[in-house]
Amino acid sequence: MRLSGTAREAAAEFLGTFVLIVFGSAVVAQVVLGGGGNGTYISINIAWGLAVTMGVYASAGVSGAHLNPAVTVALAVHRGFAWSKVPPYVLAQLAGAFCGAAVTFLTYREAFDRFDGGVRQVIGAQATAGIFATYPQPYLSLLGGLVDQVVGTALLMLVIFALGDARNAAPEPRVAPVLVGAAVVLIGMSFGLNAGYAINPARDLGPRLFTFVAGWGDLVFRAGNGWWWVPLVAPPVGAVLGGFVYDALITRHHPQEAA
Amino acid sequence: MRLSGTAREAAAEFLGTFVLIVFGSAVVAQVVLGGGGNGTYISINIAWGLAVTMGVYASAGVSGAHLNPAVTVALAVHRGFAWSKVPPYVLAQLAGAFCGAAVTFLTYREAFDRFDGGVRQVIGAQATAGIFATYPQPYLSLLGGLVDQVVGTALLMLVIFALGDARNAAPEPRVAPVLVGAAVVLIGMSFGLNAGYAINPARDLGPRLFTFVAGWGDLVFRAGNGWWWVPLVAPPVGAVLGGFVYDALITRHHPQEAA
Amino acid sequence: MRLSGTAREAAAEFLGTFVLIVFGSAVVAQVVLGGGGNGTYISINIAWGLAVTMGVYASAGVSGAHLNPAVTVALAVHRGFAWSKVPPYVLAQLAGAFCGAAVTFLTYREAFDRFDGGVRQVIGAQATAGIFATYPQPYLSLLGGLVDQVVGTALLMLVIFALGDARNAAPEPRVAPVLVGAAVVLIGMSFGLNAGYAINPARDLGPRLFTFVAGWGDLVFRAGNGWWWVPLVAPPVGAVLGGFVYDALITRHHPQEAA
Amino acid sequence: MRLSGTAREAAAEFLGTFVLIVFGSAVVAQVVLGGGGNGTYISINIAWGLAVTMGVYASAGVSGAHLNPAVTVALAVHRGFAWSKVPPYVLAQLAGAFCGAAVTFLTYREAFDRFDGGVRQVIGAQATAGIFATYPQPYLSLLGGLVDQVVGTALLMLVIFALGDARNAAPEPRVAPVLVGAAVVLIGMSFGLNAGYAINPARDLGPRLFTFVAGWGDLVFRAGNGWWWVPLVAPPVGAVLGGFVYDALITRHHPQEAA
Repeated sequence: MRLSGTAREAAAEFLGTFVLIVFGSAVVAQVVLGGGGNGTYISINIAWGLAVTMGVYASAGVSGAHLNPAVTVALAVHRGFAWSKVPPYVLAQLAGAFCGAAVTFLTYREAFDRFDGGVRQVIGAQATAGIFATYPQPYLSLLGGLVDQVVGTALLMLVIFALGDARNAAPEPRVAPVLVGAAVVLIGMSFGLNAGYAINPARDLGPRLFTFVAGWGDLVFRAGNGWWWVPLVAPPVGAVLGGFVYDALITRHHPQEAA
Repeated sequence: MRLSGTAREAAAEFLGTFVLIVFGSAVVAQVVLGGGGNGTYISINIAWGLAVTMGVYASAGVSGAHLNPAVTVALAVHRGFAWSKVPPYVLAQLAGAFCGAAVTFLTYREAFDRFDGGVRQVIGAQATAGIFATYPQPYLSLLGGLVDQVVGTALLMLVIFALGDARNAAPEPRVAPVLVGAAVVLIGMSFGLNAGYAINPARDLGPRLFTFVAGWGDLVFRAGNGWWWVPLVAPPVGAVLGGFVYDALITRHHPQEAA
Repeated sequence: MRLSGTAREAAAEFLGTFVLIVFGSAVVAQVVLGGGGNGTYISINIAWGLAVTMGVYASAGVSGAHLNPAVTVALAVHRGFAWSKVPPYVLAQLAGAFCGAAVTFLTYREAFDRFDGGVRQVIGAQATAGIFATYPQPYLSLLGGLVDQVVGTALLMLVIFALGDARNAAPEPRVAPVLVGAAVVLIGMSFGLNAGYAINPARDLGPRLFTFVAGWGDLVFRAGNGWWWVPLVAPPVGAVLGGFVYDALITRHHPQEAA
Repeated sequence: MRLSGTAREAAAEFLGTFVLIVFGSAVVAQVVLGGGGNGTYISINIAWGLAVTMGVYASAGVSGAHLNPAVTVALAVHRGFAWSKVPPYVLAQLAGAFCGAAVTFLTYREAFDRFDGGVRQVIGAQATAGIFATYPQPYLSLLGGLVDQVVGTALLMLVIFALGDARNAAPEPRVAPVLVGAAVVLIGMSFGLNAGYAINPARDLGPRLFTFVAGWGDLVFRAGNGWWWVPLVAPPVGAVLGGFVYDALITRHHPQEAA
């Protein structure tokens, strides 16, 4: 069967987000389960960035490589991406993220068992839920969490708009996936402290749903004062905001003849 | 409202410097406030470099992406950049740096409070002023600080001139922002020990002003034996010097027919 | 004597795999024998990736730079690579890997002697066999090991197919070696915990044979419950699977006119 | 005064090698004098690689960016580089390296004084001579040192030949400086344990001469059993050997019509 149109694009979004999450959750698994001997926090930053790069290469030529519902929404608001395509894109992203988490778990199942004795835990010293979804620092208020996710995603979107603006200094498109990945490295190194830089509803909810069904229980939704909805709601707001800032300061002022 | 000419360029300098400082101050915040669990000194080096890269992509096609008054001055001295544009460029850079620091603080406010109990400090174990502006090592004399900033900025400018010299081996311009960022990684890894490699008056003064008004008090100007003016005065001297060295050894000897 | 055809290609595969293994085994030697003062696990990840990049540059224009029997097999299955060339390619890869390990050992012979007192060991605190070939974690079952190697190699092949798909977003071919290396960095950071990410039969068997003949004895084949055959058998299966997934989700749906 | 011909090239070699060494010695200074808080061994690997990249960009379009007498000799042997230019190239490289070390020392003079109390030392806990030139591990024999430097430089040259071979998979020339730098990162991570990967007579002798005249005394030539001549003699042999291996396995077999 040959897919075309939105179905073909959704397949690419599924694959790209799968690549993003299978590597992204696996690097955290390796660092956490390896007890520090097989990587550090910097490994997590670098590998998430490379996971973005590879996910984008796996899909950009077909679907545009959103891989993130917040990006999809911002492109609909600011760049005329068809609203009718938003639901299939988001569903494909969620499904890809869920499957990516599942493959990571399948591959590391025995390492999990050795680490937590087979009892999956969301909080405490043997907690492993944070390998898949984000949880906030104990000091973070709900408002602080919303700000964190809005700011992080706004900066992501602002940079993505810059990297795609041929009237500014955008890189050659086939190199751009490297730079989008680098932007995620940067965000992880600088805005990862409060709450693990989800900045992507699919990246957070897909793996969280996986932990919910795979043995971690409903604490994955209750922990962090019911944190789970923050990385769903705040990133689209941030992405729209970041796109707006870039357009207000740069896009709007490009000379018309250069368009 | 559509901006044009210098106003448009100033908007780009504002945005580019904002991007530079929001990420640059945030990575130091993450490393300091995270107590080492969320990054190390190398994170700071890498993230500052990537912040430069992203700031340059956000502005190079419009303003040339100086993002640094020392660079602006050196381009005026060596490359015919209009002196009349120097003040608006510098003001835009300063304003962008101030706003970048503010957004970092806004996002990490609760992490600051947990770290210092809500009392902002410039020196001592709970000091956080160094997240935003630079302070010298205790061993560094004023003369040593001036040398440090002159040398660091001279090397920055020398490398930037090389990376932009199409008659030498300059990279394709749309890749150059990556290499300018890499140069800042390099400077931070090699010339960051004495005084935190400001090498940019706007990068230092903008965030320092923010700390001054946001609760750290006037100690931010008195600390380090009144260090604050060194990263303002020395970098332009260094940038002019570095540009001179490159031109004296390379530019001046290019065959005329190749111009 | 001038080689042509398959002989010329085999020489390139030999050289490329030699480059891969001489650096790849040497970085592990440096980290292990240096006791942590000359690199960490992240050095291993980065250097293996760069070793892939340099090995690919040393051979891609001649042989296509498989450097991995699993890749060779997957290309025969999915891309029409001639099956008759598979044996010479694989032999050349094995020979290159063996020689790379030998040069590393030659160069670090005195460091080995200082570390283990001249008695080559496969297990225990002075073990050095893991510098050359992979050995599984104690917790890993045989089935877990097979899954690990199938998944790791599938992801490698999937990403390689994406990076070479000009109808998707493939990078310019002469930049692609950098991205293939980056993919190996990524796999090492995320799927290296269970069993050291061999994902390449030649990379594992060639150096293992070297240790067998160079003083480590037949324990190199018996350790880890007879682990040695897992990185031979599982990677080709994984590579074929990963290629299939990419083609099923992406290649098959490309519009025909774009072919 | 406008230079041309060999004088112009020598100026470029001087500048490129200056850039290489000013950053290369400074990163070691920062790591050693900073006591681990301002970088680690990986910083040294990365910064030396970036220093190579920037040194090459500063000179490649004028002189070809040898920056290393071993490379100059190998190009004379294998690529027809004029032997008459070898002496001026080597002298310029040495002078650039000497000046780079001097600028590093000038900038970090007060940090040196704090570290060693103003008494420059070649061996012991306050030793700083290793910031500038290489010294072997205690376990390394003279023969082992010669092998180490021959192998390291052979691999460097082999990779450089690959990266410049347009009939293989060479990168676009204006990107190549990044990959040459990456090759040096790789060598430092994998072949740096025995003796600090000089693999360049000018990189080693220039800074060693600086330490000799700047207060470290003649122990810089006597330490390590008179190690100083090894990084002078072995690298040219290695570079010629590495170039020979590449040509024997690859260059010689390129189809003639593709030349």
